[in-house]
Amino acid sequence: MKEPLPSLLISIAEGVIDLGWGHPSPGLHPIALLKQATDHVLGGEEPTPLQYGAVQGFGPLLESLAAFLTSQPAYGFPVEPETLFLTAGASQGLDLCCTLFANAGDTVYVEEPTYYLVERIFEDHHLNVVGVPTDGAGLRTDALEEMLRSDSFPKPRLLYTIPAYQNPTGTVLSEGRRHELLRLADRHGFLVLADEVYQMLHYGPPPPRPLFGLDDSEAGVVISLGSFSKILSPGLRTGWIQANPRLIGRFLNAGLSVSGGGLNHFTSTLVHAAITLGLLAGNVALLRETYGGREDAMDRSIRARLGPKVSYKRPGGGYYFWLTFNGELDTEALQPIAQEVGVDFRPGNAFSLSGKFPHALRICFALYESERLDEGIGRLAKALESYDSMVHGLAAP
Amino acid sequence: MKEPLPSLLISIAEGVIDLGWGHPSPGLHPIALLKQATDHVLGGEEPTPLQYGAVQGFGPLLESLAAFLTSQPAYGFPVEPETLFLTAGASQGLDLCCTLFANAGDTVYVEEPTYYLVERIFEDHHLNVVGVPTDGAGLRTDALEEMLRSDSFPKPRLLYTIPAYQNPTGTVLSEGRRHELLRLADRHGFLVLADEVYQMLHYGPPPPRPLFGLDDSEAGVVISLGSFSKILSPGLRTGWIQANPRLIGRFLNAGLSVSGGGLNHFTSTLVHAAITLGLLAGNVALLRETYGGREDAMDRSIRARLGPKVSYKRPGGGYYFWLTFNGELDTEALQPIAQEVGVDFRPGNAFSLSGKFPHALRICFALYESERLDEGIGRLAKALESYDSMVHGLAAP
Repeated sequence: MKEPLPSLLISIAEGVIDLGWGHPSPGLHPIALLKQATDHVLGGEEPTPLQYGAVQGFGPLLESLAAFLTSQPAYGFPVEPETLFLTAGASQGLDLCCTLFANAGDTVYVEEPTYYLVERIFEDHHLNVVGVPTDGAGLRTDALEEMLRSDSFPKPRLLYTIPAYQNPTGTVLSEGRRHELLRLADRHGFLVLADEVYQMLHYGPPPPRPLFGLDDSEAGVVISLGSFSKILSPGLRTGWIQANPRLIGRFLNAGLSVSGGGLNHFTSTLVHAAITLGLLAGNVALLRETYGGREDAMDRSIRARLGPKVSYKRPGGGYYFWLTFNGELDTEALQPIAQEVGVDFRPGNAFSLSGKFPHALRICFALYESERLDEGIGRLAKALESYDSMVHGLAAP
Repeated sequence: MKEPLPSLLISIAEGVIDLGWGHPSPGLHPIALLKQATDHVLGGEEPTPLQYGAVQGFGPLLESLAAFLTSQPAYGFPVEPETLFLTAGASQGLDLCCTLFANAGDTVYVEEPTYYLVERIFEDHHLNVVGVPTDGAGLRTDALEEMLRSDSFPKPRLLYTIPAYQNPTGTVLSEGRRHELLRLADRHGFLVLADEVYQMLHYGPPPPRPLFGLDDSEAGVVISLGSFSKILSPGLRTGWIQANPRLIGRFLNAGLSVSGGGLNHFTSTLVHAAITLGLLAGNVALLRETYGGREDAMDRSIRARLGPKVSYKRPGGGYYFWLTFNGELDTEALQPIAQEVGVDFRPGNAFSLSGKFPHALRICFALYESERLDEGIGRLAKALESYDSMVHGLAAP
């Protein structure tokens, strides 16, 4: 008999604790919330949710989303509906940005390391991807400025950054560097694509404002990408773009949106219901509390079980810890050993085209509860022991 | 006070019968059906609908859709799930085809006239759009062959066609020409993008098979685009692509689908429920019956009220009549006069970049019930009288 075709993107072998997937916890999927929203939307005779939606996105959601973001401490500035455009998720928004704002052969700068799957989107658009160094405070704007002044690097049309709780490093771009980045974009004429899907997932004080909120250039140099995937449900494939209305105008003229109408209309009516019924705010608060507990648990597990073998910075938000091992450890060589003891992760070099992170790995604390996370870190510690004894074994002839 | 932002794409002035919009009837939006589907999907504790979906699309829908299409008389061949890929609607599918299968500067051939908004998608991808003549049996493959052999036309990378109940002309590409088109694609190395969203909306005998069902080339020269917009609800933004698994493989590697997962996962779980609960088949039958009645009513109205002033071919399916006026009538000049008497339409030249259709117009019978359609055609007749007397008035000094 043929295997049935998969339902989901995620696939984890039986018994394995796979810390590699950056996916939300199934137990936290707000099924009852969505049920309430759909009952609200489909309860009457109102056909609006099923018709072609407005080009900018479902108007009532543009308004309620603006109010919702304004109320979030991670925003901290009044969001205007005219600066929003609804997408079918951040990936779709990025794909559309490539279509509308770049040409084949153009260069896009990315953080090194960066979200590895985004590079595939850039490659599909025949863009040339160039890495910019990062450190514990995010993108190194000093290094960026040097690159922009040097003749050794092609000039960028776009720069892709994840300013808050970066994927994979968990770092937050400092406020000073945010201003510096915007100044460089304005001076050198590139557009910043800011992937800010973790912005509201802070487990302590909020990060600095999203980049759009700091952009005081006249024409706008930032497109901020938001998503309901991390704060409501990825299956809904619904997100937004925030940008200067001049840039929003280009999205309103896109063939894709004028032909099919709003990019995800029905799900937008559900999200609107979730906001107006007060359910989204409650869900974000619940996620912050739950993930905050897990982030704390993972931090304690790492300290207790891996101790001095790794260096890392506690992220304080988002989904990820980025561990860098001391010495000569190669995380790609560690991976099969880890898999054998029932744990998995993403090796550092999965996040870099230039292979600069052989000693690092990314682990996610969003998918499992604290106890499983601790068990996973325990298995990782065991894998490290096996690795060490293997290396020693090999070293001793 | 500011106007609220629009909820929908459609916008019709009070009292106007706007036959210009190619949108389904709000009264036919299956609200109760969707309610049943969401109750089914969200009724339990199953979190699958809310997680990131599989890259090819929600597996169970790939299977149920294959069985559904196989059962439709307009298909007439066994559809295999391996040949399907789920999209966020036909427009999104087309946009993705441009990203994956064309480069800036490439040429795409389109029917003349063609669906006017699709050209915006091609332009966003910097494709060069060239028209191919059509007649009452669709795309003129003889003219296409001449163009392919001539040095006066750039060679196409893509050819976009609407083989069944074409938008705007309502014509059906004959079976002979379908084979001819595929032969030409195979010989000259271009890919056929077949927009087959009206395939199941036949009000008499079904059209010939979709182009994919006739493609016996080894590598595959056709990407057939289907959609639930015309047979279930456009707001869901869910559709599919059918193609040779070699071509499907390229979609499975697209950055957009590997990053965000299935392109519209939650809505796909709803469509799957609609199929397995038997609701989709019932809805398609209802639409065929209802639109069939309207197509008949519009045909009778046109004959009774416009009579010998126009020539047209009854479409037998889809959404549209394409009327060509005798004599010197200019439908762009007629439009403001028509709007004054409370009716509207799309002038022929909206569907052609080369302005070859000044005497034609498109009217849609899907949005209104038969009585309103008749009233609309009556108003159009009145507008024609005003136009005639204006022209005569101008002619008589």
